[in-house]
Amino acid sequence: MNLPTSIEITEVGPRDGLQNQSSVIPTDTKIAYVDALSKTGLQRIEVSSFVNPKWVPQLADADAVFSGIVRFENVKYTALVPNKRGLDRAMDVGVDEIGLMTSASESFSSHNVNATIADSIERMKPLVESAIASGVGVRGYVSCIVACPYEGEIDAGQVRNIVEQLLDIGVEDISLGETIGVVVPTDIARIYDALDGVLSPEQSVLHLHDTRGTALACVLFAMQLGVRRFDASSGGLGGCPYAPGAAGNLATEDLVYFAERMGIDTGVDLEQLVSATRIIEASVGSSLCGRTYSASSCQDPSS
Amino acid sequence: MNLPTSIEITEVGPRDGLQNQSSVIPTDTKIAYVDALSKTGLQRIEVSSFVNPKWVPQLADADAVFSGIVRFENVKYTALVPNKRGLDRAMDVGVDEIGLMTSASESFSSHNVNATIADSIERMKPLVESAIASGVGVRGYVSCIVACPYEGEIDAGQVRNIVEQLLDIGVEDISLGETIGVVVPTDIARIYDALDGVLSPEQSVLHLHDTRGTALACVLFAMQLGVRRFDASSGGLGGCPYAPGAAGNLATEDLVYFAERMGIDTGVDLEQLVSATRIIEASVGSSLCGRTYSASSCQDPSS
Repeated sequence: MNLPTSIEITEVGPRDGLQNQSSVIPTDTKIAYVDALSKTGLQRIEVSSFVNPKWVPQLADADAVFSGIVRFENVKYTALVPNKRGLDRAMDVGVDEIGLMTSASESFSSHNVNATIADSIERMKPLVESAIASGVGVRGYVSCIVACPYEGEIDAGQVRNIVEQLLDIGVEDISLGETIGVVVPTDIARIYDALDGVLSPEQSVLHLHDTRGTALACVLFAMQLGVRRFDASSGGLGGCPYAPGAAGNLATEDLVYFAERMGIDTGVDLEQLVSATRIIEASVGSSLCGRTYSASSCQDPSS
Repeated sequence: MNLPTSIEITEVGPRDGLQNQSSVIPTDTKIAYVDALSKTGLQRIEVSSFVNPKWVPQLADADAVFSGIVRFENVKYTALVPNKRGLDRAMDVGVDEIGLMTSASESFSSHNVNATIADSIERMKPLVESAIASGVGVRGYVSCIVACPYEGEIDAGQVRNIVEQLLDIGVEDISLGETIGVVVPTDIARIYDALDGVLSPEQSVLHLHDTRGTALACVLFAMQLGVRRFDASSGGLGGCPYAPGAAGNLATEDLVYFAERMGIDTGVDLEQLVSATRIIEASVGSSLCGRTYSASSCQDPSS
């Protein structure tokens, strides 16, 4: 079946997940959530975003969360950074890596980061230079790799074009985001075909939404192509406030269960992960939709 | 990717789905649901079960439902039959095909059909003969092909053993049921390996639950092996009252979406399918968990 022996998961629940909650979660709860995630064996956690609190009030306490969490030696703690001000804040609290956002869709870029794609990449240049000079890692995020909620289908050539521009400015670690959850394995095939010679499956990170139940089928196919790194959100927390219909990230529990049962090492303890998710579910005020997570609290469906 | 050009779906919502509802649905609603399903392009609908109403009161009106529905020419209307009495009732209303249940797990068999596996197959013999003599189709269902809620993991050799016995008594159409939703693609590989020379992927039907979000990944892998026929339940309705943790069949909408976007013809109109599911969701009194179905009513996740 050509499966890998291990995969690496970036947990994006504390940022991507909480950003999309209507309620603001208390800082202490976020800290407890991240600390619990740190104990699961996850290698990377996207803790928050140093965006202007005016735009994302849910993550206004990024500095306090970073200062409050216990930093585990084997875990990388990352955060999104939209500009110089954000980078300074991120540096002050000692993030291990910054994430920079752009999109394969012009319309999504204007709605999401309020800039053309070209401008969003231009803005990244000095941030990438500063981060690298300070020994801080950089990951580039490309959203809407398959379709955009405003434009519809996105050409894979456009994804290649954006990836080339990111590589040109020194961003070598690139996460490909299927933002609205329409993806099927043939889309994955099409995109990696278009990226041939530019970004290999091994080099890339895949960020999927499970809006239509298709995420793990795409993970399977992507793993067979050579992809080894995936983003996921505990409990399936999140979605995208700017992407109508995007009803949840691929749930970390589902990915861990899926991989481990196939003999693929994730390093993650599923039971501890479920416990971490329970902390945040209690606070968001609605049931999370991750399948494995939901099954863990359902012992008798007939009752 | 070695994908088929088309697949055939058996809609099991009216039987497998409704059997697991705590509430009893009015007969008229069931009839309206089946009639709406008939208009979607589905080729096969499992309408009900002619089991003793004492055991499954939810389906006590099997005769009335069959008599009330409009029979479309291109749709096969099937029902489960546990014994001679059930077969007579099914014949009286003119079912196109009967379904006979056994299991790859001894414990599940005693809990579910109150018989050893050997006895359950012995009981089938005269039913198979009568049905075939009357020109009625027969499908055999083997549950717990991967694991059992009482016994844990099931050996694939046992699945092969049961399938051989079904073939021996003249059941040539066999649906392999992963009852509790633990399945991953390596399980599918293991089972079809064990069935080599006995039952080919092309001959088999696959019945999956999406309890851990793994169903479509298994469908992908199974299609690549040659499987062309799948059971699914509209909206993800159902589960199994005797299988703790089995929180829902593979949703038909998810399967249709997945296949059609990959260019695989299902013959099913997704919009009409969603409309049919709405009829039954309104009556069961709780939200259905099919992903594509849920996404169809969620236009703005941020609201």
